[in-house]
Amino acid sequence: MSDPPIQAWIDAHRPRLFAELCDYLAIPSVSALGQGIEAASDWVERRLTALGAQVRRFEPPGGNPILYAELGPAEADRALLIYNHYDVQPVDPLALWTQPPFEPTQREGRLYARGTADNKANFLSRVQAVEAWQALRGPLPLRIRWIVEGEEETGSRSLPGFCAAEGWRWADSAGCLWEAGYKDEHERMTLYSGLKGLAAFELVARTAEVDKHSSMATLLPNAGWRLTWALASLKDPDERILIEGLMDHVRAPGPAELRALAAIPFDDAAFRASHGQSTLLTGVRGAEALKRHLYQPTCTICGVTCGYQDPGMKTVLPHMALAKLDFRLVPDLEPELVGRLLRAHLDARGFGDIELRPLAGEHPAPGHPESAVVRAAVEAVAAVSGVEPVLWPHMGATGPMHPVTSAFGIPAVGFGTGYWDSRNHAPDEHIRLADYWEGIAVAAEFFARFAAAPLA
Amino acid sequence: MSDPPIQAWIDAHRPRLFAELCDYLAIPSVSALGQGIEAASDWVERRLTALGAQVRRFEPPGGNPILYAELGPAEADRALLIYNHYDVQPVDPLALWTQPPFEPTQREGRLYARGTADNKANFLSRVQAVEAWQALRGPLPLRIRWIVEGEEETGSRSLPGFCAAEGWRWADSAGCLWEAGYKDEHERMTLYSGLKGLAAFELVARTAEVDKHSSMATLLPNAGWRLTWALASLKDPDERILIEGLMDHVRAPGPAELRALAAIPFDDAAFRASHGQSTLLTGVRGAEALKRHLYQPTCTICGVTCGYQDPGMKTVLPHMALAKLDFRLVPDLEPELVGRLLRAHLDARGFGDIELRPLAGEHPAPGHPESAVVRAAVEAVAAVSGVEPVLWPHMGATGPMHPVTSAFGIPAVGFGTGYWDSRNHAPDEHIRLADYWEGIAVAAEFFARFAAAPLA
Repeated sequence: MSDPPIQAWIDAHRPRLFAELCDYLAIPSVSALGQGIEAASDWVERRLTALGAQVRRFEPPGGNPILYAELGPAEADRALLIYNHYDVQPVDPLALWTQPPFEPTQREGRLYARGTADNKANFLSRVQAVEAWQALRGPLPLRIRWIVEGEEETGSRSLPGFCAAEGWRWADSAGCLWEAGYKDEHERMTLYSGLKGLAAFELVARTAEVDKHSSMATLLPNAGWRLTWALASLKDPDERILIEGLMDHVRAPGPAELRALAAIPFDDAAFRASHGQSTLLTGVRGAEALKRHLYQPTCTICGVTCGYQDPGMKTVLPHMALAKLDFRLVPDLEPELVGRLLRAHLDARGFGDIELRPLAGEHPAPGHPESAVVRAAVEAVAAVSGVEPVLWPHMGATGPMHPVTSAFGIPAVGFGTGYWDSRNHAPDEHIRLADYWEGIAVAAEFFARFAAAPLA
Repeated sequence: MSDPPIQAWIDAHRPRLFAELCDYLAIPSVSALGQGIEAASDWVERRLTALGAQVRRFEPPGGNPILYAELGPAEADRALLIYNHYDVQPVDPLALWTQPPFEPTQREGRLYARGTADNKANFLSRVQAVEAWQALRGPLPLRIRWIVEGEEETGSRSLPGFCAAEGWRWADSAGCLWEAGYKDEHERMTLYSGLKGLAAFELVARTAEVDKHSSMATLLPNAGWRLTWALASLKDPDERILIEGLMDHVRAPGPAELRALAAIPFDDAAFRASHGQSTLLTGVRGAEALKRHLYQPTCTICGVTCGYQDPGMKTVLPHMALAKLDFRLVPDLEPELVGRLLRAHLDARGFGDIELRPLAGEHPAPGHPESAVVRAAVEAVAAVSGVEPVLWPHMGATGPMHPVTSAFGIPAVGFGTGYWDSRNHAPDEHIRLADYWEGIAVAAEFFARFAAAPLA
């Protein structure tokens, strides 16, 4: 059941709240292109300061400003950490947008702009929830620590160093509200409490200085074959990852995680249909598919380039071949460990000639589905929206949850104002305005419930 | 011993002969891209007509023009067939060229341009030899039939049909001068009388309509992996071709071929050094390396394209992956047979989803090392250059020798103006100008000797 005074406050202030959202969305803060970073970080700093927060601005060398804010009563004995980011994805292909991506446009109850669902509306709905609380009830019921970074869409490269240096400021937080969340096709909010990690590499085979004539393939080595054989040694056609020792580090889900998994409604026929597949890999179905998705690591060829690739034929013996691989990591796999095992595996299998270049790494963040912060989120969503949410122990996707929360043992939960068709990272990204108004009320309800929840 | 009047004529006309060569090389006749085909075929047609040849232009449907010229006295009772091509290989990677590939550039006695060694200078040295003969001696000592095609670098797809329809015009030729030849690291011209065949294919894996987010790699198939596994099933890291039944069709060299092989001086240390390799594939050395090169087929990855290939990382699950493969064929392997065996192998190994598209096919052409045309070439090279040539029964490379000569029982021989480091098909392709001037004289000497040689 939603809180009537909060709803009334939101209804009474809609024009201003909406105008403020459009103002923030109009800043083209594309981190990949270095655009709008100062404007967006200044906007966030001003907005948090206006709430009464004490805001510190950190300027990581070579990175984008990270804002760290504290607000709420100093005497409160519970602290909530919130993580958001002010940067957005590039807008290309621009031609596929119905309107300019940084001119927020309302159409049929939806608000279109780059950054609506990912992640500006989530940030502002939480800000406006604090404002509503303060207007209606006075001091917040807990202390809030708020991290707003500007490199999430380019891999959060400055964040781990910032967390290692400044994490003492928020290490005793009792929970963390993560950046975003989405309603599914059945209007159920999808909550999640953890994320997979990521390790990405380039594998490079080099067998000569230049390509040779392919008639010499009797005697001279071929970088294309070297890379093919090296790749084929990593995973077999039955989808078994063959890297020596890697699967030994995959932790089986615990009882709480399995309970959470069993409670997730997963329609594998709908999933297969939406992806145009008659079967899923290894033939998994239903709950087994979901378990595989969340609790198995991946080893993925994201790209390969080698030799002649234009139309027709060129009879060359390629001197160089390059593959880009990513691994999605479950506990206890970590990027550095995967790199070491991969190097050792290649060496042991006779592929010492294959160069291995790390491209990106993020640690997995295990979920805590039975923690107080998750329970408060489940209850807040159900109470305000009237629809029971779906709790995922963690998501198949990746984000910098490890350095922000897991490293300090802080349980996290994500919810937000997006829905299944919000088109993150794609043209015509949008949210539904009804979800936005509801999201403000959910955030306020969540503050109340988390402040009062018994900790485990 | 070289012919003094021929040498004097070449020396006296060098600037014009050189300018003419540069003019021809400047035409970017890349058959794989359909570039410069009209310009190059017109150039050849004009040049042969200027020699007094009767030139017919055939326009195969969907193919590039084939020029067929006849010249020399109608009453001559011996005919020589000559085969050349006016098309060249693509130029990529363009960044590795020292100068633009279609701006012929002289540097330290070398002439750099795409098509110098393969095959424009060979063609023109023969044309200029005819011109020299006519200027110094009058009518040619034999009749010449000349085929100049424009699809050699893409597999000569129109040529077999042309040969089947028009071969009656040259079927009674006593020998054929093939397109090219190269001096080895010891300045010995390498003559050859046969060629390997070729079968080229595209293998295509397709697992979805569009790329997906790589977090879905737990459940959705990856075209990159499908292709990698299919390729790895074709050849193992010990260079064994695994295609079921293929090696059963490889004919072992007979005693005569082995004797010819034993007469070839092959310096494997020099070969390894020139290719920057400490060992050759499978560890072969000396005569064993040569035997492997000439009497073993190959299975070569010429190119692979899949997913994201730009700098940095994009976490995609590729929906499509494509490889270009070529096989160099020894008797009795034929392209259609290889295609059938490859399809059956993929199906049997669980890769029925891999599409197989034939790109090119050429039958192997066995050599005739004891024929009159070969003996005339050996003698002409020795007489003009003063260095005994090396006779190879056949070459590791490929050309359409089967439909042009073997199908009619015409013995063939190849020599030309390239050398071991001419970098055919690669950046900075070039010839040495001294070889070019010598090549004109060798061609004229060859005409004389072949006209007078007793036939077997």
